[in-house]
Amino acid sequence: MGNRLSRDARAMRPSPIRALAKVTAEKRIISLAGGHPSPDSFPIDDVSEVIAKISKSLSAQQLQYGLTLGNLDLRKETAGILAERGIKTDLANVMLCSGSQRGLDLIGRVLLDPGDTILVEIPTYPGAIACFRNLQVEMVGVPQDEHGLKTDVLQKTLDKLRQDHRRPKLLYTIPNFQNPSGTTMSVERRAELAEITAREGLYVLEDDPYGDLYFNEDEKDSLKPVAALGKGEVVYISSFSKILAPGLRTAFINGPKELIDMLDLAAQASDLCSSTLDQAIVYELVRSGALKRSIDRIRKLYRDRAEVFLKALEKSMPDDVLWNKPRGGFFLWAKVPDSIDAEEMLEDAIKRGVAYVPGVHFCVDGSGKNEMRLCYSKEPAERLREGAGLLADTITQALIRE
Amino acid sequence: MGNRLSRDARAMRPSPIRALAKVTAEKRIISLAGGHPSPDSFPIDDVSEVIAKISKSLSAQQLQYGLTLGNLDLRKETAGILAERGIKTDLANVMLCSGSQRGLDLIGRVLLDPGDTILVEIPTYPGAIACFRNLQVEMVGVPQDEHGLKTDVLQKTLDKLRQDHRRPKLLYTIPNFQNPSGTTMSVERRAELAEITAREGLYVLEDDPYGDLYFNEDEKDSLKPVAALGKGEVVYISSFSKILAPGLRTAFINGPKELIDMLDLAAQASDLCSSTLDQAIVYELVRSGALKRSIDRIRKLYRDRAEVFLKALEKSMPDDVLWNKPRGGFFLWAKVPDSIDAEEMLEDAIKRGVAYVPGVHFCVDGSGKNEMRLCYSKEPAERLREGAGLLADTITQALIRE
Repeated sequence: MGNRLSRDARAMRPSPIRALAKVTAEKRIISLAGGHPSPDSFPIDDVSEVIAKISKSLSAQQLQYGLTLGNLDLRKETAGILAERGIKTDLANVMLCSGSQRGLDLIGRVLLDPGDTILVEIPTYPGAIACFRNLQVEMVGVPQDEHGLKTDVLQKTLDKLRQDHRRPKLLYTIPNFQNPSGTTMSVERRAELAEITAREGLYVLEDDPYGDLYFNEDEKDSLKPVAALGKGEVVYISSFSKILAPGLRTAFINGPKELIDMLDLAAQASDLCSSTLDQAIVYELVRSGALKRSIDRIRKLYRDRAEVFLKALEKSMPDDVLWNKPRGGFFLWAKVPDSIDAEEMLEDAIKRGVAYVPGVHFCVDGSGKNEMRLCYSKEPAERLREGAGLLADTITQALIRE
Repeated sequence: MGNRLSRDARAMRPSPIRALAKVTAEKRIISLAGGHPSPDSFPIDDVSEVIAKISKSLSAQQLQYGLTLGNLDLRKETAGILAERGIKTDLANVMLCSGSQRGLDLIGRVLLDPGDTILVEIPTYPGAIACFRNLQVEMVGVPQDEHGLKTDVLQKTLDKLRQDHRRPKLLYTIPNFQNPSGTTMSVERRAELAEITAREGLYVLEDDPYGDLYFNEDEKDSLKPVAALGKGEVVYISSFSKILAPGLRTAFINGPKELIDMLDLAAQASDLCSSTLDQAIVYELVRSGALKRSIDRIRKLYRDRAEVFLKALEKSMPDDVLWNKPRGGFFLWAKVPDSIDAEEMLEDAIKRGVAYVPGVHFCVDGSGKNEMRLCYSKEPAERLREGAGLLADTITQALIRE
């Protein structure tokens, strides 16, 4: 049926991470791949309690079609959450949707045409790569260093694109505990990014699923979103998936009213509304303070895991392997010597009982060959220690084999 | 920000029905507009019970990301539902998604390119018009009569398009209790439609949200979907929204495995997965037999409403108003004399306290000026009687005014 498919469909590719999920579903395999929140992070008792409460007072309205922009009470609570993050907002700027991936697609549909150029970080979230690729958009990469996206390279890239008469429409960025690199963009870089994109008339699509998951309280101020800087046009997307539970499929978008109005139209024609029950549950968890308690607990959970994993890496890794120390979130980024192809090495790693995602899957410029994303969110401490050891063995063996 | 929007976005239009929803939210207004299921149709007690049960045994897995194709247990149950409808199927042919509108969009994304031509019924579902319009697809209308889509005109339309070197990719049809016309396609027409589309290599997109809602048991056999005829390529979409509750956002798609594989990829990049909790609830309602009981009850509910409404129309309408007698579903289609513009008349109708949707909003060829969709699903009997009277008064007055 190939010739019957749309151009969008012919561009679609299976997710390399989902292919890995079949492997990591085996208990034997320690997964540093995935990217899912830890099952231990879900506030199961709170959710159970809320569900039990809803079951006792279930109304017909809770089973009817909901508003396309989302449950009004939850939108109001979300405006409060955004304000706490420093984002000046109003109800008309806030929309709910069934998960960030849905939000990325809606935003892409409303802002981007096939053939448009956009800028993404090197490396970046593969779900965004898939979303933009399916929209037939050309992605140009801007590298990061330990301070996040390199704004000097951003400016140079824009200058070069202008010479080629290409005018990128949008910059996609994950400033906080980036997926996959674990890097946090510095305050200075955020200011420069806002300055450059405002001057160049470039839309910023800021994705912030992990911002609440910092490991140290004094980090908080440096995590202020680009959307809070009051420069240029920023559409900000965040989610309850990593701080409550992804199964509840509730994310939120903040942006200029005119954009939210268009996203509303786009959602009307592509999903009508999100789950009324999920939104009622999330609302109750936010209102009651269960979300805040949950986040406090989760921060500690992931901080402990990161600590264990970093210690284990330090203990076991060969000298010429490099990695960063994330200050929050789920991920870190490791670099093995040039001679190693991380994708080729994966087979041996899996044989030994550990999985990771090769760097190439995150890089739109074909780089990342000797890099990999390591996720410490899913496995408990003991398995993280063991996984670090197995990965170290795999790399050591690959280095000997040369 | 107009010039910053995508072509898709610039084509988007607000839904005329949603604009009406603001008016019909007033208690005073009797709504024959809407299209929502009756709040009285929801099996609230059963849903409450299931939710209470889930709250007692909630697992982390029920809050985690789910499979893109949907909850495996519910997919299996759905395959059973499809088999009961006469559709030969297999697990690999079945996919769940968050509502039919999501399904239409996914199917459109995978099969259609901007500029493609597709065929739709005159009149047809405005949500589908919005979905296809946003995909930049050209819609060519094929009229219906009391037996459904006119297959002779379908053939002539295809011949004419061929002369113009236009090769339509897909035919969108709602054979059972069509939205908005309330018409049911005859068994003969279904066979002809399957024959023609198979011969012409035209994909059939069959939308069947109302098929279970027949008013008489002996109707059942004549409702067999086109997808059950075993001819050509048919993608069939149906939903739990009208037989359980739309807030649970669960629809299902049946199609060739290769198409389902592509829809899986499209969904991965545009929503990752549907609500795990909603699917768990729907599964339990199907498994336990609550769905079957609910459908039996709902059939009677809508049959009674249709009866009351039809009687009231017969009693009150001026002689030269025509309408059909639906054999199931939510809608009927009324035709007023040519001299009346149903859209212009709406203002007076609302003043008098009744609302309907003007026919033009359902017709891609600009027809429907003196037609209207009347929905009897939402209002209780007493208000349906009153609404029919108010509408009759409105029409009578419009005829006098000429």
